[in-house]
Amino acid sequence: MIEFNKKAIEDLEHLKKINLINSASGYKSCNLIGTKSNSGQSNLAIFSSVIHYGSSPAIYGFVLRPTTVKRDTYEHIKETTVYTINSVFSDIIEDAHHTSAKYPKEVSEFTKTHFEEEYKNNFYAPFIKNTPIQIAMKYLEEYYIKANGTILILGEIEKLYVNESILDEDFFIDLSKARIAAINGLDAYTVPKRNIRLPYQRIKK
Amino acid sequence: MIEFNKKAIEDLEHLKKINLINSASGYKSCNLIGTKSNSGQSNLAIFSSVIHYGSSPAIYGFVLRPTTVKRDTYEHIKETTVYTINSVFSDIIEDAHHTSAKYPKEVSEFTKTHFEEEYKNNFYAPFIKNTPIQIAMKYLEEYYIKANGTILILGEIEKLYVNESILDEDFFIDLSKARIAAINGLDAYTVPKRNIRLPYQRIKK
Repeated sequence: MIEFNKKAIEDLEHLKKINLINSASGYKSCNLIGTKSNSGQSNLAIFSSVIHYGSSPAIYGFVLRPTTVKRDTYEHIKETTVYTINSVFSDIIEDAHHTSAKYPKEVSEFTKTHFEEEYKNNFYAPFIKNTPIQIAMKYLEEYYIKANGTILILGEIEKLYVNESILDEDFFIDLSKARIAAINGLDAYTVPKRNIRLPYQRIKK
Repeated sequence: MIEFNKKAIEDLEHLKKINLINSASGYKSCNLIGTKSNSGQSNLAIFSSVIHYGSSPAIYGFVLRPTTVKRDTYEHIKETTVYTINSVFSDIIEDAHHTSAKYPKEVSEFTKTHFEEEYKNNFYAPFIKNTPIQIAMKYLEEYYIKANGTILILGEIEKLYVNESILDEDFFIDLSKARIAAINGLDAYTVPKRNIRLPYQRIKK
């Protein structure tokens, strides 16, 4: 095993440090967050930090750094209180990754990719047409993380759309059937092929 | 697309609801968190919520529900301020999943699985022997999530051990080389086989 202590990590060259620390925590979710400002400017940004916080009520969180390009996402959510979460699958990985380019605020990533805005049920924020899972989110609250100035945004699911071919009888969504991607580190994408489900565990005597 | 609105989600039968909401956010990391109480009681629990919060300083977060079996993890961290994060790979998925069984506080999951405690460099919390990535964490701070009473725990990396065969030249850790698992939903495990790395994106004119 190669060992890195805290000082060695601190002293690493920037790119090595972000590669190492972004990879070591394991696979991450891969989603595009869609927003639209009050003035009608749409935005799309890739996030690897969307996670489950609770099912009842249905709450997801994601983390953002106010100093990066993702600032648009934050500002639009604060203005309008709504956003969409759209799953990234194999056919759209390159376009999804491209949303990480630092476009100025007045340029919508929808105009620089093949993604098409979709509006449903009077929800203000844009979905991405033809993604296998589309989620309409309503902002709930945020936490400023003192340790490093990042912000955790929590939202509640307002509406959830899922392609029926990937929804099992017990409402497990088989992400592999839709070739949904996971992220390894900063810039590596993987499309898991199959999964095994394990039973509920009881204690061994 | 099948549509679920907020009310339909609320009204779902419990198991369907937790399957659906736990799956729709995408793949999750798969880690075992190791702790030890001041009195010497070790504990191991599987978590799908470990995520990256920052690289400089190197900060990871994870979420816990104080009302579940993972209470031991929380109490030990509060007592001792330290814990370990150990990656789950294909050979140990079944044992990792078994740590979700609700053992009483005085039973260590190490005694009910094939996992072996490993202690290194005087770090108080136990690592799992022979996992490809082992991380020594120091508690930093926590946030009580008002929306549903979960707790976000943030910690800083004190030491990181990584199997040299999975560390690339630029310190990207190729999780697929170590057959590291991801979680889909509550109880499905997948072992991604390969990944593609995409270049840093610049704006298109």
